Amino acid sequence: MARTRKSDYDREADRGGVYLRERRAELRVDRSNQVPGLVPEAAGRTSAASRRSADPDPPARTDQPAREDPALRAQVPAPQSVPLPDPLRLYRGGTLRGAVSAYETWGQLNSARDNAILLFTGLSPSAHAASSERDPSPGWWQRMIGPGLAIDTRRYFVICVNSLGSCFGSTGAASIDPLSGQPYRLNFPEIAVEDIAAAGFHSTQVLGVKRIDSVIGASLGGMSVIAFAAQFPRAARRLISISGTPAASPFAIALRSVQREAIMRDPEWRAGQYPPDRPPRNGLTVARKLGTITYRSAAEWRQRFARKPLTERAPARPSPFAARFAVEGYLGAQAERFIQIFDPNCYLYLSSAMDRFDLAEHGGSYAAALREVSCERALVIGVESDLLFPIDEQSAIAEAFRLNGIPVRLARLPSLEGHDAFLVDIPRFDAEIRDFLA
Amino acid sequence: MARTRKSDYDREADRGGVYLRERRAELRVDRSNQVPGLVPEAAGRTSAASRRSADPDPPARTDQPAREDPALRAQVPAPQSVPLPDPLRLYRGGTLRGAVSAYETWGQLNSARDNAILLFTGLSPSAHAASSERDPSPGWWQRMIGPGLAIDTRRYFVICVNSLGSCFGSTGAASIDPLSGQPYRLNFPEIAVEDIAAAGFHSTQVLGVKRIDSVIGASLGGMSVIAFAAQFPRAARRLISISGTPAASPFAIALRSVQREAIMRDPEWRAGQYPPDRPPRNGLTVARKLGTITYRSAAEWRQRFARKPLTERAPARPSPFAARFAVEGYLGAQAERFIQIFDPNCYLYLSSAMDRFDLAEHGGSYAAALREVSCERALVIGVESDLLFPIDEQSAIAEAFRLNGIPVRLARLPSLEGHDAFLVDIPRFDAEIRDFLA
Repeated sequence: MARTRKSDYDREADRGGVYLRERRAELRVDRSNQVPGLVPEAAGRTSAASRRSADPDPPARTDQPAREDPALRAQVPAPQSVPLPDPLRLYRGGTLRGAVSAYETWGQLNSARDNAILLFTGLSPSAHAASSERDPSPGWWQRMIGPGLAIDTRRYFVICVNSLGSCFGSTGAASIDPLSGQPYRLNFPEIAVEDIAAAGFHSTQVLGVKRIDSVIGASLGGMSVIAFAAQFPRAARRLISISGTPAASPFAIALRSVQREAIMRDPEWRAGQYPPDRPPRNGLTVARKLGTITYRSAAEWRQRFARKPLTERAPARPSPFAARFAVEGYLGAQAERFIQIFDPNCYLYLSSAMDRFDLAEHGGSYAAALREVSCERALVIGVESDLLFPIDEQSAIAEAFRLNGIPVRLARLPSLEGHDAFLVDIPRFDAEIRDFLA
Repeated sequence: MARTRKSDYDREADRGGVYLRERRAELRVDRSNQVPGLVPEAAGRTSAASRRSADPDPPARTDQPAREDPALRAQVPAPQSVPLPDPLRLYRGGTLRGAVSAYETWGQLNSARDNAILLFTGLSPSAHAASSERDPSPGWWQRMIGPGLAIDTRRYFVICVNSLGSCFGSTGAASIDPLSGQPYRLNFPEIAVEDIAAAGFHSTQVLGVKRIDSVIGASLGGMSVIAFAAQFPRAARRLISISGTPAASPFAIALRSVQREAIMRDPEWRAGQYPPDRPPRNGLTVARKLGTITYRSAAEWRQRFARKPLTERAPARPSPFAARFAVEGYLGAQAERFIQIFDPNCYLYLSSAMDRFDLAEHGGSYAAALREVSCERALVIGVESDLLFPIDEQSAIAEAFRLNGIPVRLARLPSLEGHDAFLVDIPRFDAEIRDFLA
């Protein structure tokens, strides 16, 4: 049977290799005999510092990501970050002090400072969307971002932000609370998709962007794009929302709720107070495996795995219920990688934010929420096999633009790979995004 | 928004009531001032004992269900059961001593002993498919079985069996191993769908049935029906397989695998050696919630729950991630009931059996497996919104009958309730089954 296309992420995860690759990348840096003083920040190509100096009152930029326990984050190269407004008032009422937004960039900001693309991510990725000198390992959208690719870095200055509340450099529940000197854990305030969108906007401002050309995002990122539009209706010329939703369905809420419960029912969760080196691995493993299932589709897996047996079975099975099928091995490799790098409390915060998001909170209806939007046009992409964010929800987003007179294209892609198709079915996404940005 | 139809099970579970109802039913029995000696067995209407005496060499029947820890099973009325062949050789190579099959019956076996309907259940129910004098509480198919109903007990002698390997009276992992005097736990041999089918067949023989009129089952029961046909090809006149599969898809395997893992990663599971009064409740709760999600459909829940908030929120939320939406309350009530009555090890055994079942093991293909079947006709029912047992799989079952020249109807029902539609969308199922049995 034909094997469906696989994302770079899949290819790595299949051999349990993403985490190991990150370790190797780190070791490569260590072996590179860098000139002392050539810190990763200075090695970046974006020269944002010099551009920023042209600003009348440039906000300071920091090379410090949110402080975290080094045991948790040592395997990830320290990301660049920008400070967020201090105090940062959050959408649901909380406040953060000294919060930062981690980011990566590709390409150059032009002299008009209007060629920036702001990229939001899904629930789990870092800002490392593509390789760079700073971090040569492949990013999560490696085949989409680069010279001559759909998001063409010869033309655009691409900024990808790690979501506020995540654990890859932006301030989140695993970061150190400056007031207590301890990790926030459950003292972290409630994060909303609106806050992620606002942190992305602020990041572009600190980096010297005058007007954003396009805001792009998929999954949680696709939700962030419309939360961005509702809050900063005149800040971007164009919008691309991929596999997002204006408000999660009860089915998606249920699936995420069970993932959170798997974490919280793990005794090692300890009401969020787990030591950094003893996170609730069992709960996070179950959560991630379930997440992975919801991101793909039955049709894809029928082609890809069918009922093939797991080849590398342990000779002495620990229980009569040990993994037996190839699909179980795939889930295992995905989860094994994930639990090494993702903070369980951050997972809970971001997962809850996805449940609570409701575009209609901004004015009473989806259309009202986008009433002030002045963008030239919008692209909304959905995937027919997506069971977590079904295509009706992208259709509702497109309709909200249309009702406000904004030219919008709704692309209904027949990809087999479900919600994750944007990571895998690159040709279809490439064509849509390339055309739209042309 | 319109609230979709609910099954009796749902209605009870919504108010967390099925378990409590069972307790109440038990108390009613206790309060009834029964004539001493009128034990539940004797109070049954089927008079199987007198019929059995007409047999030349009737196998003995026992009123003893498989021995279990009373703490686990005290809330369920002691079921009737029949002894299975001793030793019982299992499909995957194991052996059981002193195994029994629990059952309930409705209606009367006729003098030709050929009006019996054998009913297999899904993964979780007991043999209590409908109310009876013995147990007046509503059964899991209350609106389908009874005088004048689709499975008409004025005409048919209906036998519902608790699956071998389950924990409602049939021998399973929670039963006492006669060799050790201790519960089997993980010393229980691997159970296959074929064994469930065979135990059902033997039950009909012990009860004096000469030829089975119809074998019916849904979900695991629908798989049991075709496993029955492959093993006892001349034993039944008609077959009805509902929402079953000839071999589970990798998507269904993945969803069940994660459920098993939630149980096995609960430290309270203790490699299966948990004390009966301290089962791995956290793991079983997560497993059951996920199971419940897979049994329904996104479309149903959009109508039924939308984004309605949970009304009875605890005033002091134990965590910022406590349940917030009505759908989460529904999952909680379902799981709360389930973990009171279902044994986690039995869940693991039956869940694994569903993964491993492959009709093609019987001769190399689905059609070859049914080559010897001599039934007059078959009805295969599938539901378009079923994501766990998609309708293509019922189509494959129907095709296997067709290739063997057996008249078969494939009913594709547009029910909204997914895999569980047979419990909820009674009018559609009533019409199909009534017509077929007419």
